[in-house]
Amino acid sequence: MREAHRSGCPINLTLELLGDRWSLLILRDIIFGGARGFRELLRSEERIATNVLADRLRSLVDAGLLTRSGDPTHKQKTVYSLTEKAITLVPMFAEIGAWGNRWLPASETHGIRARLLEAGGPPLRERFMAELREEHLGEGLPSGQSVRDELEEAYQRVAGKAND
Amino acid sequence: MREAHRSGCPINLTLELLGDRWSLLILRDIIFGGARGFRELLRSEERIATNVLADRLRSLVDAGLLTRSGDPTHKQKTVYSLTEKAITLVPMFAEIGAWGNRWLPASETHGIRARLLEAGGPPLRERFMAELREEHLGEGLPSGQSVRDELEEAYQRVAGKAND
Repeated sequence: MREAHRSGCPINLTLELLGDRWSLLILRDIIFGGARGFRELLRSEERIATNVLADRLRSLVDAGLLTRSGDPTHKQKTVYSLTEKAITLVPMFAEIGAWGNRWLPASETHGIRARLLEAGGPPLRERFMAELREEHLGEGLPSGQSVRDELEEAYQRVAGKAND
Repeated sequence: MREAHRSGCPINLTLELLGDRWSLLILRDIIFGGARGFRELLRSEERIATNVLADRLRSLVDAGLLTRSGDPTHKQKTVYSLTEKAITLVPMFAEIGAWGNRWLPASETHGIRARLLEAGGPPLRERFMAELREEHLGEGLPSGQSVRDELEEAYQRVAGKAND
């Protein structure tokens, strides 16, 4: 059953779908963290509760943002994939991260990815989306180092320094 | 009193602040609709409840996204202004609108503004932010037709056709 929409405004519709404090974090962990299974997603730093994760994953599948494969009776064996609809959220994530990095007390280690993504501008976002399509939709053939690896290396570098 | 943050991730911090279904709609109405007072904000199409609006306005002021001026004992006479922090949300709104317009059942009349803003790319966002700075922070001097007027005219044009 589908709720009626509060209005036909595209900003409102997006918020109706994703405007809670968990759905976008789950997508973040799949997009930027490469998480694909329930257990991995449960390990997010924000400590999502098992029942909330299960509920939001169901909603994201229903909303056409994720697809599910693997053994449906064993949620530990299920693999989640991004759809094109979810992959095209990358520019929005880039802006959310850039804004949070600028105005909120983001840690240096967490902020480095957002800074790199901002500095890379639209071309880096496009490259990243192409890689996600390859990984999740089996499209195209990426070559060279992946954007996610680059972001991850920068993160590890800064995290290493922070622990020195 | 300030809650502890779930993590120092800039995406998480932004969602902690703005990840409910109303705060961004209020900012949308001020940024794109030019609303400045409680009554105008109450008229939003999504029918925000009076107590929710009052609560969210308080939070937005506390978070440094809005400033309040006018008679503090008469909420009907209070005027809200955007801060620089809120004005820099324009690129994020542009991406949220573009995504919603592409993937969700946005109405043609509501979608036209998002489409124009997307088509105008970063230069249009910059112009729009400069206008908001002039309007809300008293900076600079805009000349020529404003971006909000352009978006509003396009909206009225499409809305007119829809009613033909």
